Amino acid sequence: MNEASLHKIYAACGADALFLEQDFLRRYVTGFYSTDGYVVYDGSECTFVADARYFEAAERALRGSFVRVREGGRREALSLLAGKRTLGVPYPYLSRAGSDLLEGEGFALTDCMPFLREAMKVKTPEELACIRQACDIAEEGLLATLPRLREGMTEREAAAVLEYEMRMRGAEGVSFETIVAFGAGSSVPHHETGDTRLRFGDVVLIDFGCKKGGYCSDCTRTFLFGDDGRHEAFKQHYALVLKAHELAKERIRSGMTGREADEIARACFREQGLDGAFTHSLGHGIGLEIHEHPMLSPRSEEVLADGMVFSDEPGLYFAGEYGIRIEDSVTLEKGRVVSFMHKTQHGLLIL
Amino acid sequence: MNEASLHKIYAACGADALFLEQDFLRRYVTGFYSTDGYVVYDGSECTFVADARYFEAAERALRGSFVRVREGGRREALSLLAGKRTLGVPYPYLSRAGSDLLEGEGFALTDCMPFLREAMKVKTPEELACIRQACDIAEEGLLATLPRLREGMTEREAAAVLEYEMRMRGAEGVSFETIVAFGAGSSVPHHETGDTRLRFGDVVLIDFGCKKGGYCSDCTRTFLFGDDGRHEAFKQHYALVLKAHELAKERIRSGMTGREADEIARACFREQGLDGAFTHSLGHGIGLEIHEHPMLSPRSEEVLADGMVFSDEPGLYFAGEYGIRIEDSVTLEKGRVVSFMHKTQHGLLIL
Repeated sequence: MNEASLHKIYAACGADALFLEQDFLRRYVTGFYSTDGYVVYDGSECTFVADARYFEAAERALRGSFVRVREGGRREALSLLAGKRTLGVPYPYLSRAGSDLLEGEGFALTDCMPFLREAMKVKTPEELACIRQACDIAEEGLLATLPRLREGMTEREAAAVLEYEMRMRGAEGVSFETIVAFGAGSSVPHHETGDTRLRFGDVVLIDFGCKKGGYCSDCTRTFLFGDDGRHEAFKQHYALVLKAHELAKERIRSGMTGREADEIARACFREQGLDGAFTHSLGHGIGLEIHEHPMLSPRSEEVLADGMVFSDEPGLYFAGEYGIRIEDSVTLEKGRVVSFMHKTQHGLLIL
Repeated sequence: MNEASLHKIYAACGADALFLEQDFLRRYVTGFYSTDGYVVYDGSECTFVADARYFEAAERALRGSFVRVREGGRREALSLLAGKRTLGVPYPYLSRAGSDLLEGEGFALTDCMPFLREAMKVKTPEELACIRQACDIAEEGLLATLPRLREGMTEREAAAVLEYEMRMRGAEGVSFETIVAFGAGSSVPHHETGDTRLRFGDVVLIDFGCKKGGYCSDCTRTFLFGDDGRHEAFKQHYALVLKAHELAKERIRSGMTGREADEIARACFREQGLDGAFTHSLGHGIGLEIHEHPMLSPRSEEVLADGMVFSDEPGLYFAGEYGIRIEDSVTLEKGRVVSFMHKTQHGLLIL
């Protein structure tokens, strides 16, 4: 991020300094990744305190940026805070133990996360580029996996293949635990990938994503592993989920609230008396974390804006039978939705 | 765990009730895994509060145990705490935001983690069985990976293969980010797996592990990808690391402190004037988390005991040249070290 954005967070938070010890927040502010370190910002100077392991690499990476690098650990970081009274720290990500430690040092604490979260919603071009790459890798990984699916294979094995194909294309890891559901397991939105074996005619639901440059992708595809002729209702429901997914893409605009966006898909199901089977919200923000803001849900008054990245993932679930979810990671550009996902088909695929 | 152990933690903590919202702690107490839920223990009743997604599975899994299951969310869990004043919660794992929420409900909080941590050090036979499986899968995964290493392959690709082979053998995922280091990268103990390509004659260091039943394995092997004849010093240092690794296995006893255990390996390096190149501690506890207690380090006064599981991982690092680490996950049985790792060789492997 740039210094102006950081200063805005600092000013809104009202603390004497910001103090960040969390991997993803250090990365957000500096763009540099490390498993340890501290970011201190006092309203004029932003310092990244890195230990011997990271110091040189951080110096190289941050030369010419607004962030200066100092070698040291916690003591060094706290020394930069001498004379400050109130620290802005992220309450949802600071442990109670960490909080007690800082209060024990004599600081008063205040939560800076609401302001950070607001800033994190709108992505910079660099952030969008990382997310685009993470989406490309995810889709290419799925395309390489589909021909490797075999009758008798377990959900876990299919996940292994998909994760391998993403890794081989440069993914740093998965952005969340890969969900592979064969048959009735697809009716559970958060199905745990297990030892169920793939049979001819199964509905297959795969919800997956990877990380690149620290940023996440999130994608779901539902398809048939062969058509055994018992799938008329499924096909009608699939067409309806696809319609909801596409309508949301078409009609969501910058300036709408998350509630209004969600309602586009929900209304589409309601018209068919099926909104009861759409058991979650339409989408969530995506960034360094897999679940960020904005929320696209019936209760979200967050206003969507250009540069935000979120999922468009309507679904229908029929317990014990099947579930369908079609999900893209998308962004808003010039007021309209632009999807990051163009490589895998959205229409029903029958393998 | 059993009720007696839970009661001991409760009594030591001195709170009116224990309140656990963390995945791995719920799993530790109940043995049941879920991504959401609450464990409430008031000294006589242990309740697992699960939402609709997990209720049935939890009921089935916990029938006959000391844990009763109730359907609901946070409100339901808090209703079980009516009339309680002090809650035992884990300060290092409860966020400041979560802590404020509970204090806002009128509870006084106290840290139960020191007592939980103490209990978690000593594993039950069921826990040991999970760790053994995680170790078997890790070693078999490595054995399947070695013949697939090729000149020109990147570190990231090698990690992809290894993670795939572990997944195909039933791993639920990795227990930490796989470290693959080719050449000089091996001299950085926490090397970040990247795009460096494998060349003939490279030192290869792989530090990896997987999860099974929620429990972790941790293993490191260092070897040569072909011998280009430039490796005399490396071979001598390898022999010394192996000696330290084996001496630790041979001489560590239940009843020793973590400091005394660490000193066995450290003295071995010191005799050769190389203790300065052993830049980390000998080992750490392993369980549901990859870094648990006991610590085997120069400052650890923790007393080792039967049933504890930890790593034995001496290493030597020569910046810009190479690093060597040999690591097993081990346990203490009848006072002596028993390794979980028998499948991969400890002596220098030249591929």
